[in-house]
This record gives sequence, C-alpha cells and structure tokens, in this order.
Amino acid sequence: MNKTIGFIGLGVMGKRMAGHLLNAGNSLRVYTRSAEKARELLDRGADWADSPAVVARTCDIVFTIVGFPKDVETVYCGEQGLIANLRAGAILIDMTTSRPDLAVRIADATQKRGGQALDAPVSGGDKGAREATLSIMVGGNRAAFESVLPFFKLMGRNIVYQGPPGSGQHCKMCNQIAIASNMLGVCEAIAYARKAGLDPATVLKSISAGAAGSWSLSNLAPRMLDGDFEPGFYVKHFIKDMAVAAESADAMGLRTPGLNLALSLYHKLQEKNCGDEGTQSLYRLYSET
Amino acid sequence: MNKTIGFIGLGVMGKRMAGHLLNAGNSLRVYTRSAEKARELLDRGADWADSPAVVARTCDIVFTIVGFPKDVETVYCGEQGLIANLRAGAILIDMTTSRPDLAVRIADATQKRGGQALDAPVSGGDKGAREATLSIMVGGNRAAFESVLPFFKLMGRNIVYQGPPGSGQHCKMCNQIAIASNMLGVCEAIAYARKAGLDPATVLKSISAGAAGSWSLSNLAPRMLDGDFEPGFYVKHFIKDMAVAAESADAMGLRTPGLNLALSLYHKLQEKNCGDEGTQSLYRLYSET
Repeated sequence: MNKTIGFIGLGVMGKRMAGHLLNAGNSLRVYTRSAEKARELLDRGADWADSPAVVARTCDIVFTIVGFPKDVETVYCGEQGLIANLRAGAILIDMTTSRPDLAVRIADATQKRGGQALDAPVSGGDKGAREATLSIMVGGNRAAFESVLPFFKLMGRNIVYQGPPGSGQHCKMCNQIAIASNMLGVCEAIAYARKAGLDPATVLKSISAGAAGSWSLSNLAPRMLDGDFEPGFYVKHFIKDMAVAAESADAMGLRTPGLNLALSLYHKLQEKNCGDEGTQSLYRLYSET
Repeated sequence: MNKTIGFIGLGVMGKRMAGHLLNAGNSLRVYTRSAEKARELLDRGADWADSPAVVARTCDIVFTIVGFPKDVETVYCGEQGLIANLRAGAILIDMTTSRPDLAVRIADATQKRGGQALDAPVSGGDKGAREATLSIMVGGNRAAFESVLPFFKLMGRNIVYQGPPGSGQHCKMCNQIAIASNMLGVCEAIAYARKAGLDPATVLKSISAGAAGSWSLSNLAPRMLDGDFEPGFYVKHFIKDMAVAAESADAMGLRTPGLNLALSLYHKLQEKNCGDEGTQSLYRLYSET
C-alpha cells in the first residue's frame, strides 16, 4: 500500500473514513469544498490538494464521498474533474449514494481514459464510519474491486461485490427502498399504541423480537418515543435517495407504491422544515395530527 | 395446577398449545368445531366436551384460539357460550387475534358474571406454537394475568402484560401494523434488485444485517426468491388482522396510510385467489407485472 491515496469529501462520513486510511499508514491527499473540514486530517499528516484535478493528477486511487449526485458530477466530470485529469491505470471509487445511471456513465468515461471507476455506496451511518463497520456495496470492474479491497476493509466489515458498474448504487437503492416503507410501519405502530392508551415502550417489548422486528423498530422507535429527532441519517438525504430510487424504478417499469407513499410523506415532513432532522422525525406526521 | 383446563380451538396453533398444557400434566378438556382435529389430544389423555357451554360449566380456566372475531363471538356470547355458562371465579383467555372492542365487551360481560376474561393474542406462528416460544401480549385484569402466568409459560417465552381489557389485542394490532408496511418494502427491494439485473440473494447479503434489516427481510425474502409461497402465516388471516387494525385506527381518528396501502394490495392478492398462501406471496404483485 505504498501509493498515494486521494480522498474527496470530508463530511461526517468522509472524515471518519479517510481517518481510517490515514491510521493504517497510507499517505493521503485530501480535497473538500469547505477547507476547514480538512484541518484535523491535515494536522494528522494528510496533504491538501487545491482541486479534484490536482488529486487526479497525483493519486492512483481516489475515494469520493460527497453530498448529492450533482456534486458527484462536479467532482468527476468537466475539465477540472477527476476523469479529465486521470492518471493512467488509476481507480476512482465513489462512495456517495448517487444515481446508478451516473455511476455507469462515470465508469464508461473513466475506462475510456484508461482507468476504472467503482460505485461503492455504504450503509451504517456515522457510527459505522467511526467504528469502521460500514456495509459497502460495490459495482464495477471486478479486478479493480479486488485491488482496492484492502482499503475497503479499513473502512467497513460487510463488503460485497454486486456486479457491473451501477450495481453498488442499485443495491443501495434496494436498501433505501426496504427502509422507506418500513418507516411507515414503525411510525404507525407507535402512533397506534399511543392512541390506544398503551405504553409504547411496553409494546416494543412484545413486538421488537418477533415477526414485526426490524433495525428501525429497535433503533428508531425508542427515539421517536423520546422526542429525539437528532439526525443519525438526515431527512433531506433520505429524500434524495428515495427520489433516485423512485425515478430509477420508474425508468425500469417497476411500480413501487410503498416507496412512493413514503417519499410523499417525507416531502410533507420537509415542508415542515424538518429536512435537517433524522429520518425518525417522520413520526411527527403521526403524532401532531 | 390441579384444576381442569378447558381449551377451545384446535387448529394449527391451538393443537400445539393445548399439547404443551397436557404435556405438563394438566387435565385438559377440549372442544373444537371439527371433532377430528381433537383425536390426537384425546389419544394422549384429554377429555372431549360437546360444546363451549360444557367446557364453561366444568373448567375454571378456559383458553380459546379460534379463527375470526365472529368465531370468538360464537364461542363466548349467546346462551350456549362460555360467558352464560361460566363457573364462579373462572378465567377465560382468548388467544385469537381479534377485535379490541370485542375483547373489552367480553371482559365486561365476564366480570358481571363473577369471572375474568383476558385477551392474549400471540405472535410467532406455527413454529412458535410448536416450540413454545410464542410472544404473548396480554390485556385484562392484572391479578387474573398473574394467576394464569404459569400456563402462559408453558406456551410462550416473551409474555408481556400490556394493560386493561383490549390491550393485548391492541398490542397485536401494533405488531401487524409494523409488519404490513414492511412487507411492501421487502417486496419492492427484491423486485427492484431483480429488475436492475442484480442477484437478489447477493443484495440480501449487503442489506439484511444493516438499517434495512428486518425479520421479514431475513425470513420471507428468501422464500420470495425461491417462489415458495407456502403459508407460514395465511394471507387471509393477515387481511383479517389488518382490517381490524385499520378499522380500529379509524375509530380512534388515527391516519395509517401505510397500513391502508398494504391492506389494499393484499386485497388485490386475495382477488388472485392467493388467500391460502403465505404472506410472502405479496411478491407476486411485483413479479407478475
């Protein structure tokens, strides 16, 4: 692992993930839109790059995790982007949750320039990033995947190759689709318990371990009950993901009524200025009516 | 435990549950609509009763688990029912998943006749019944609950007192509500994976253990992929439960759009003559379009 690793995007997730690469003794070159977010890593020995183009010109492996698909497009595409400034044989790995079709486009363009691009979105949130227990779902060239696997292992635990370019993003969409409808069930179960005069915490004792059990019921329902709407995962980001999933399903001719309903309710929630809260704040729609 | 225990309803669940009571050395008097379903228990030493009235007149504790709320009404109410023929001080325990308001009515009527009635629906299915690992959610008089707890412990593992009459049924409704919406998410995630050309089993490896994880995703999604629609839990019974939950939510002024959507999709499934399949057959709606 003597190569210089590039890392672009040092938000809540990226900062932790880049930190693990650095801790393992890799030399790291970082760029992020808000330079002050890089300070901690620079203090610990990372180099600063002034732009994605500089990162691309000086690194053989580049990880990115930015906010929205449009940010991915900015970082990868255009004259100052990663692809146009690629080193021969470089591997670009986008860990943002983004559009599957964009991932395919990036992989094609990168390959034409003599490199490989992987789409490798994650789940596990802030906690998973901090504890290096992320689930990483990877699409793209298999040999490229194998060659960067040691780096993935510094950041995650459940690392699965899903198939050709876009497959990582598609897999992440499956993850978000499964969560979306389940959030309705969790909120409605809790709201029903309250309305019926039960103690919702006692109800959770009965139902959490059985056929109604889910990660969200065990982890988010208690926060709903405490009125704790602090973000683990932002409403605004979940909406972005669901919108991509819905659009992608639509393009494939797949009907997803549960996802569509969840998305419409989350839009309502965002109209109440709750976009910066955690996804569990969906419960507000049920408790405030 | 020297009392004679009555048991009414020897379907897939009841037969197993009554068997555990018998195995523990209790003397058991059984009644069920289709007498042939009692044979095994009679061979093992249970007594036959010709009607609910006979059971009521000769037992101090009576368990019931029948099909639908109307069956509960038949067994409990009317001149030949349990309540009209109650022994003084008897305890009636309905383990059917039934209407909370009916449970309240039965508890009131039973108390007026000098007894107590508990509503104690279960979750855990055939497997839970067989292995005595059911989750039992109990509403009704607390002292009555304590006095029959040793019997519950012969049938289940997670036994929780939820509150006054009807609370057990309300809790079970919370359970079904949480499952209902989640089933949409599970089906849509799997259907999306297939449409996107991923291997759904590999997708499950990525998503089952994280924030999208649920009992249904781990246990029912693999059956969907295998085209195995054999009933663990019947579509027709799930529809009954969801209909009760939706009606009850409506009566309380609670909006449950996720539940309503799930119910409407399961109705569609039943129109395709899938009522006797397992709840995972909801996937048919997504895979056959």
